[in-house]
Amino acid sequence: SKWKVWTKEDVKRTFPKRKPGSHKGTFGNGLIIAGTDEMPGAAILCSLAAKRSGIGKLTVAASRFVSGIIASRLPECVFLHDGLEKIADGQLPNKMTAVAIGPGLPSNETVDAAAAQMMKTDLPLIIDAGALIKRHYPKRDAPIILTPHPGEFQKMTEIPVADFQKNRIQIAVDFARENGVILVLKGRNTVIAFPDGEARINTAGNAGLAKGGSGDSLTGIMLAFVSSYKDVKAAVSNAVYFHAACADYWKETRAETTMLASDLNETMPYVMKEFEG
Amino acid sequence: SKWKVWTKEDVKRTFPKRKPGSHKGTFGNGLIIAGTDEMPGAAILCSLAAKRSGIGKLTVAASRFVSGIIASRLPECVFLHDGLEKIADGQLPNKMTAVAIGPGLPSNETVDAAAAQMMKTDLPLIIDAGALIKRHYPKRDAPIILTPHPGEFQKMTEIPVADFQKNRIQIAVDFARENGVILVLKGRNTVIAFPDGEARINTAGNAGLAKGGSGDSLTGIMLAFVSSYKDVKAAVSNAVYFHAACADYWKETRAETTMLASDLNETMPYVMKEFEG
Amino acid sequence: SKWKVWTKEDVKRTFPKRKPGSHKGTFGNGLIIAGTDEMPGAAILCSLAAKRSGIGKLTVAASRFVSGIIASRLPECVFLHDGLEKIADGQLPNKMTAVAIGPGLPSNETVDAAAAQMMKTDLPLIIDAGALIKRHYPKRDAPIILTPHPGEFQKMTEIPVADFQKNRIQIAVDFARENGVILVLKGRNTVIAFPDGEARINTAGNAGLAKGGSGDSLTGIMLAFVSSYKDVKAAVSNAVYFHAACADYWKETRAETTMLASDLNETMPYVMKEFEG
Amino acid sequence: SKWKVWTKEDVKRTFPKRKPGSHKGTFGNGLIIAGTDEMPGAAILCSLAAKRSGIGKLTVAASRFVSGIIASRLPECVFLHDGLEKIADGQLPNKMTAVAIGPGLPSNETVDAAAAQMMKTDLPLIIDAGALIKRHYPKRDAPIILTPHPGEFQKMTEIPVADFQKNRIQIAVDFARENGVILVLKGRNTVIAFPDGEARINTAGNAGLAKGGSGDSLTGIMLAFVSSYKDVKAAVSNAVYFHAACADYWKETRAETTMLASDLNETMPYVMKEFEG
Ligand SMILES: Nc1ncnc2c1ncn2[C@@H]1O[C@H](COP(=O)(O)O)[C@@H](O)[C@H]1O
Ligand SMILES: Nc1ncnc2c1ncn2[C@@H]1O[C@H](COP(=O)(O)O)[C@@H](O)[C@H]1O
Ligand SMILES: Nc1ncnc2c1ncn2[C@@H]1O[C@H](COP(=O)(O)O)[C@@H](O)[C@H]1O
Ligand SMILES: Nc1ncnc2c1ncn2[C@@H]1O[C@H](COP(=O)(O)O)[C@@H](O)[C@H]1O
Ligand SMILES: [Mg+2]
Ligand SMILES: [Mg+2]
Ligand SMILES: [Mg+2]
Ligand SMILES: [Mg+2]
Repeated sequence: SKWKVWTKEDVKRTFPKRKPGSHKGTFGNGLIIAGTDEMPGAAILCSLAAKRSGIGKLTVAASRFVSGIIASRLPECVFLHDGLEKIADGQLPNKMTAVAIGPGLPSNETVDAAAAQMMKTDLPLIIDAGALIKRHYPKRDAPIILTPHPGEFQKMTEIPVADFQKNRIQIAVDFARENGVILVLKGRNTVIAFPDGEARINTAGNAGLAKGGSGDSLTGIMLAFVSSYKDVKAAVSNAVYFHAACADYWKETRAETTMLASDLNETMPYVMKEFEG
Repeated sequence: SKWKVWTKEDVKRTFPKRKPGSHKGTFGNGLIIAGTDEMPGAAILCSLAAKRSGIGKLTVAASRFVSGIIASRLPECVFLHDGLEKIADGQLPNKMTAVAIGPGLPSNETVDAAAAQMMKTDLPLIIDAGALIKRHYPKRDAPIILTPHPGEFQKMTEIPVADFQKNRIQIAVDFARENGVILVLKGRNTVIAFPDGEARINTAGNAGLAKGGSGDSLTGIMLAFVSSYKDVKAAVSNAVYFHAACADYWKETRAETTMLASDLNETMPYVMKEFEG
Repeated sequence: SKWKVWTKEDVKRTFPKRKPGSHKGTFGNGLIIAGTDEMPGAAILCSLAAKRSGIGKLTVAASRFVSGIIASRLPECVFLHDGLEKIADGQLPNKMTAVAIGPGLPSNETVDAAAAQMMKTDLPLIIDAGALIKRHYPKRDAPIILTPHPGEFQKMTEIPVADFQKNRIQIAVDFARENGVILVLKGRNTVIAFPDGEARINTAGNAGLAKGGSGDSLTGIMLAFVSSYKDVKAAVSNAVYFHAACADYWKETRAETTMLASDLNETMPYVMKEFEG
Repeated sequence: SKWKVWTKEDVKRTFPKRKPGSHKGTFGNGLIIAGTDEMPGAAILCSLAAKRSGIGKLTVAASRFVSGIIASRLPECVFLHDGLEKIADGQLPNKMTAVAIGPGLPSNETVDAAAAQMMKTDLPLIIDAGALIKRHYPKRDAPIILTPHPGEFQKMTEIPVADFQKNRIQIAVDFARENGVILVLKGRNTVIAFPDGEARINTAGNAGLAKGGSGDSLTGIMLAFVSSYKDVKAAVSNAVYFHAACADYWKETRAETTMLASDLNETMPYVMKEFEG
């Protein structure tokens, strides 16, 4: 299959500058369905990353307990209390422009129903973590983006990790093509495979990312970029790049062992500066 | 109409230095009516900005849920629990010197009743967001300041955005004059129109401000300035300037894409330093 | 009366260095009775300042709502839930070494009862804000320290502010001598008057301190110093000095207008460094 | 007995670098049983330190009140609500790789039952604070690590502090050998004694650590290292070293008086950098 490393130069070339006359509506209105009382932090990390990555408006669907926790950390978002249940039940919020579902959610019927509701819409959709299961994906115009780590990809495909890791690029490309989705197969050298057969490899990042919460941040960045880029391929690829580049920036002056997922809140402003010019 | 760009030099000239012998009473006792359980963050952002902009004392009228969230972020303010309902009901807190209403509030009867109660007082009043509707404004001595973004101005006036954007200054001036209010028509090149026909234009700021929560911070700065300036025209104009200048300061070293409304909490101390001398 | 300005050199001379072999018990076990659901922040500010000023252990008596808010900001303290009521009722916690009562409390019977209970103990006691009323002070070995701002001193003495401000030092000294207490009469050029007739004046600080919450921080610093100094006069005087010096440090690089009471959390470590050598 | 000072060079030699291809599972899945509604902060400090020290995944067993507080500060962990009671009752979470119990817990039957349940597993176990009592330790393969300060060691052994402080190394070594545990006898010059009779002494650190919450952070670092090191002796020794080294790093530019236990969250990334190369 045809693949390439997605380099810093590729990111520079495809990075969209904010236009002077733009307003918050210009950068989309994202919805995050994430977090449970047992895993509230996943929703915080995802939301924090989305806001730091330039999304215009953000709504988080979570329990009241989780919402209170998010709000004290991130005042820039609004809440749909008990949104997961409402959405699973078909009550969808209006005027959204892109959706991410999964961080900090279990794999259960309600989550599955909410994901199914979202697949019926014409919104770009990122599916992560608890919302990743073995399923069929509908044919639709707006992209569906899946972001499994190896353990989740095994669950989705029933291929043992050991098997597909030997041949990750080909297997990712086949999956993307057959299912008509964008597949982000995470881990060192993340593979981004598109339904048209193209694949891009990320070589940035380090083992400081090997920690709980890391993937939740990636999902948030991706939601922001999908909401504000015209080119969805660039949006997904650049999200993977910036997530990794933040870890490399941290490592320049601080121990990678000590980096937390929430630290991209501090590093992203400096990392992205170079690309805005 | 007569208008001018409100420059950094204008701000320097009108910036009031804190007198050595002053005490917290010198800088006013502001009231913020803002935030709901669905949008608690607007109240945080507004309060944070008011405190960072030098207000003496601050009371926030909000639900207990919202108050708890604000307090963990901003211990320097006090709360009027369920204050919106109390105020709508005519139970007004004592000794306030200026009021802001609207950030994070819906447009409903309770909010409208609370705004109406406040218009009956002789306190300077800032009306924003959910409290901005089509209405008549009473003749009174203390200023009423309206801070709509274009979508809100359309709602208030029923003039389509596309129509007034072509001729913003004139339309703003007419509105201010006819209604006897100060109108802050936000967006790139914000127009500040006074009832006497004067208009000032802000040219600072950048698209990093084009994000949910941005306007809530502006309302907070304005409340602080209205509370501590003698010259209300300067108070309003300088609030718009500092809000924008914080975004420009951020952009000097960090990506504008990544700036959050709450970041002015960090930039304002440095931005304002230059003006205190 | 004999008085002197309490200078930086005086602070240097009386600043106690931490001994290498010391443990947390060496630095006291303070109790703060502060904060209500309407004014939770006063308890946070007081506690934060006490911890930043080196206290060994700290217990905060507050409602569960307030405790939750403090804990998320300051994990280094423990809580006595509904402690105000318990203490007013005579149920005193064990092993305390010094107490502060008042920040964020109303002036009511419960607060008065709690203060009365504390005056019956042999613990150094700081009385501030809501706990400051007109009352008689018992003769006891451990010091009682009162920290009124002018408005509170008027309430305590029924002398109008305008009257005593003309002659603050003498009136403070008389009050301290007659009541057998240490009186800290706050405001620009704070007067510290001791029962033996000595008075010290603080000339540090600036109008950045003229903001709600400022005094709550001072009470916290004072509790820490009273808990860890042998010389109580130095403890009180140095607390007033460091509180003010933090504001002056802030002002070197940032606008005084923008300083919040909680910012001493960030400045104190650098300000105090010079004194530890 | 044979003992040595555990030096910076020893730490450098035994510090494990993160392998490029590693994932979060590589660095363990820790469980912290800590915190009560009266002492929620101990659980925060322990969890924060564990995450900053590189643990892969972290679950905290605490009440819902405590969990909410932790989550707003540390989104990178997950919760087992009312986990202490569940564990005491024999309902153990799956897939854990190491456990710490005690910070912020009282010494009562439930805590004792939970500790007993954990001793029955084959997981490395750190016992601190409220979980430290006089008891017998089972023979097992995985290490049991006890981290008393002198007061706690007295409670565990009924030897008066004054007696064992004169001869700390020998007494620690005897205790470790007789009980088959690793004993970390804290305080200035912490002694780390192993069941094989070896002892290591830490000479780093300063009296800035002499404050409530300090030991809770040490427990968290130790949990992270025990989870991610192969050599348990190095894990325990290096945890003691880094905890102390963070205090020394703080003191280079800031007053030791002012350091809080939570500040290692800020210093650790820089302190550890030197060891990662
Ligand atoms: N060793 C590693 N090197 C580079 N990136 C990594 C490494 N380990 C994990 N990551 C990234 O961290 C994130 C982990 O996602 P998750 O497992 O969902 O938390 C993904 O973006 C991975 O690509
Ligand atoms: N592109 C832009 N350039 C400059 N200022 C902007 C821009 N977009 C939004 N703002 C400002 O950000 C704030 C947005 O307010 P709101 O829409 O109420 O959140 C207003 O103060 C606007 O003037
Ligand atoms: N203008 C000022 N200059 C110096 N210190 C001040 C000034 N205004 C207030 N303060 C100090 O700030 C604190 C205010 O206490 P409170 O009124 O209880 O919040 C006291 O320590 C005052 O001495
Ligand atoms: N004076 C001191 N010098 C060095 N380390 C100290 C000192 N006092 C306390 N510590 C350390 O701080 C921690 C206190 O633990 P704990 O008493 O459980 O909070 C232990 O790691 C002690 O070794
Ligand atoms: Mg994940
Ligand atoms: Mg707005
Ligand atoms: Mg006060
Ligand atoms: Mg301890």
